[in-house]
Amino acid sequence: MLHVVDGVRIGVAQAGIRKADRKDLTVVLIDEGSSVSGVFTQNRFCAAPVQVCREHLDKGTGIRAMVVNTGNANAGTGAEGLRRARETCVALAKLLHIEPNQVLPFSTGVIMEQLPHDRVIAGLPAAIAAAGNHASAQQWVEAAEGIMTTDTVPKAASTQVQIDGVTVSVTGISKGAGMIRPNMATMLGYVATDACVTPAVMKALSLALAEGSFNRITVDGDTSTNDSFVVIATNKASHAPINSLQSAEGQALLQAMLQVARQLAQAIVRDGEGATKFITIRVEGGRHTAECRQVAYAIAHSPLVKTAFFASDPNLGRILAAVGYAGITDLDQTGIDLYLDNVHVAIQGGRHPDYREEDGQRVMQQAEITVRVVLGRGTAADTVWTCDLSHDYVSINADYRS
Amino acid sequence: MLHVVDGVRIGVAQAGIRKADRKDLTVVLIDEGSSVSGVFTQNRFCAAPVQVCREHLDKGTGIRAMVVNTGNANAGTGAEGLRRARETCVALAKLLHIEPNQVLPFSTGVIMEQLPHDRVIAGLPAAIAAAGNHASAQQWVEAAEGIMTTDTVPKAASTQVQIDGVTVSVTGISKGAGMIRPNMATMLGYVATDACVTPAVMKALSLALAEGSFNRITVDGDTSTNDSFVVIATNKASHAPINSLQSAEGQALLQAMLQVARQLAQAIVRDGEGATKFITIRVEGGRHTAECRQVAYAIAHSPLVKTAFFASDPNLGRILAAVGYAGITDLDQTGIDLYLDNVHVAIQGGRHPDYREEDGQRVMQQAEITVRVVLGRGTAADTVWTCDLSHDYVSINADYRS
Repeated sequence: MLHVVDGVRIGVAQAGIRKADRKDLTVVLIDEGSSVSGVFTQNRFCAAPVQVCREHLDKGTGIRAMVVNTGNANAGTGAEGLRRARETCVALAKLLHIEPNQVLPFSTGVIMEQLPHDRVIAGLPAAIAAAGNHASAQQWVEAAEGIMTTDTVPKAASTQVQIDGVTVSVTGISKGAGMIRPNMATMLGYVATDACVTPAVMKALSLALAEGSFNRITVDGDTSTNDSFVVIATNKASHAPINSLQSAEGQALLQAMLQVARQLAQAIVRDGEGATKFITIRVEGGRHTAECRQVAYAIAHSPLVKTAFFASDPNLGRILAAVGYAGITDLDQTGIDLYLDNVHVAIQGGRHPDYREEDGQRVMQQAEITVRVVLGRGTAADTVWTCDLSHDYVSINADYRS
Repeated sequence: MLHVVDGVRIGVAQAGIRKADRKDLTVVLIDEGSSVSGVFTQNRFCAAPVQVCREHLDKGTGIRAMVVNTGNANAGTGAEGLRRARETCVALAKLLHIEPNQVLPFSTGVIMEQLPHDRVIAGLPAAIAAAGNHASAQQWVEAAEGIMTTDTVPKAASTQVQIDGVTVSVTGISKGAGMIRPNMATMLGYVATDACVTPAVMKALSLALAEGSFNRITVDGDTSTNDSFVVIATNKASHAPINSLQSAEGQALLQAMLQVARQLAQAIVRDGEGATKFITIRVEGGRHTAECRQVAYAIAHSPLVKTAFFASDPNLGRILAAVGYAGITDLDQTGIDLYLDNVHVAIQGGRHPDYREEDGQRVMQQAEITVRVVLGRGTAADTVWTCDLSHDYVSINADYRS
């Protein structure tokens, strides 16, 4: 069940951007007095709307609206793409009687084709009308559907938490299935709360949420040009404003929002293109979390490991090989242990004497699998979530545009 | 046509290592007075035979024999695997009346299962007998077949070059189709020449050859635990010994051997698991070759780019996205140009105004494609060779062990 977030209204419309009869345009209207922060792709080839989002958030004049289109990513579109993203903001601002730099634009879809922004702009009045005058849970469901591209299911999550005796709601949506290896954000993710958060805390909050959720997932290792993750606090709740994430209230809100963000991120992996399995990769015993995450991503990105998961084949040497080439130059292979769920597969770099192929096979056939690697060189640990590589991944990406 | 290399005899036998009726054991006998050098995988989880090869080459007592088995990689096998690799060397040394540290062992096949070294040892006399007393071209053909695993074709290359008026032969073989992203070497590659090369030059020669050939290819980005590349100079030719790669004779030999090594490396990509296309990725205009190679590998490893090639789909934004996430943090997207063969696709980071989809489509349908990216920030360039990602890649790797 999704909770309404007081101060956020959403409307979805059909703008005919790439295909007819498809809800491809979403506007999010944010009440005055809200705090908004975002983290964006580290891809140097970032899309035009990402550049505009960064500019508008830097101006800090108070974000009041977001516009999201699917069907076209407005990436690799040069100066003309930037112009079209800005014009979209101008048009929405005019309709809402706000400033253009109070609008955040988002685009997702095909790269390197110009955005048909005239169609986006023509669709805005219908989307605004759909948002109406009252926030509702149903609007979030429609928005989750409205931002889908190759996704097979809409992705939404919600929770509530008590802050100072006041019930606060947290609701979010996300989209993404391919070109997923977020680096500071996911394809598109939005999490809103009616909690009261001082603007100074917003950046740290959005970074902590991205770090604990969208920055831990990968489908195919391809970092998108459009990754965007936005956090909204409408400040409608009556508790005292949270001015530190270290306070008890800050921690309570962070954990609630992290739960929602993580659920949204994991939903992207579960819906990974062609995915049949959800894999948790936990690397322990490292000198620092960075090297643990590096090893976890090497495993998560190995096509050989991913196809072995698809085939339910306990070809576990492929995991050890990935550990070996992950880039830790002074790694000692005789210190490494490997577990598949609770099955101890490798000990001190070699096959465990008690390991039986049928035990590995049993775990590999599950829909959810945890790979645990112990590096034996420290106390740090980190976790990454990914999926397998199937025939359908190839089919989906070989046919995407046709 | 393969040229005989005087001083190198090869014998192949069936040892029943994993499957019956399969030539899975190869011995290479090298005349006394030869110079041998090797480069090996940078995977920290390197296989037992790789560790033994490094030790034996370091001792420098003169390599006189090599033994190669398929069916089992002897990797992820711990101390027991190391013992079995050593015992294989001891057995071959005894049969040839040489020292164990004059033998180099190589294994390729499944990881994390103990090598049935008793079967390897039992097969040695037949392999030695097959080598006979005379070097022949046919032995190289049989060796190329003898070291195959998931390869669909044997890989051999040969050339001749004049050094000081003396005709010198260069002949080599390689194997590999998956788990290919060599880092200092390929799965298995051997290049031999009867040229006269002083031992001091051998290390630089093998490094230069690996750098210009096997270190420029990738199939799936998985660096193998067993990558090994060995260069043999039997010193039989009557010209004055080459004591520098910078001399005219050194350059002549290097170019001839590079031609053979590159042909062997490219043959691995052409035979890449499930590969239907051979892709040359050339990155120009970088500040240094390292960043050019980094960008080339990002493109070569992107599953989205690889599936687009498989589908002959000019979804070229995927290439630009890979350029953007390759890790050059100060890359300016407005300086980037992209060509597909001679078709100018993107200019200054955006779609070229004259680019027509049908032109991109035409190139994408070819069996051999050159992607050229111009970074616009310097004069360095580098090239990497790769293949597409097809349904067959998934099939091959989902079913490999069954």
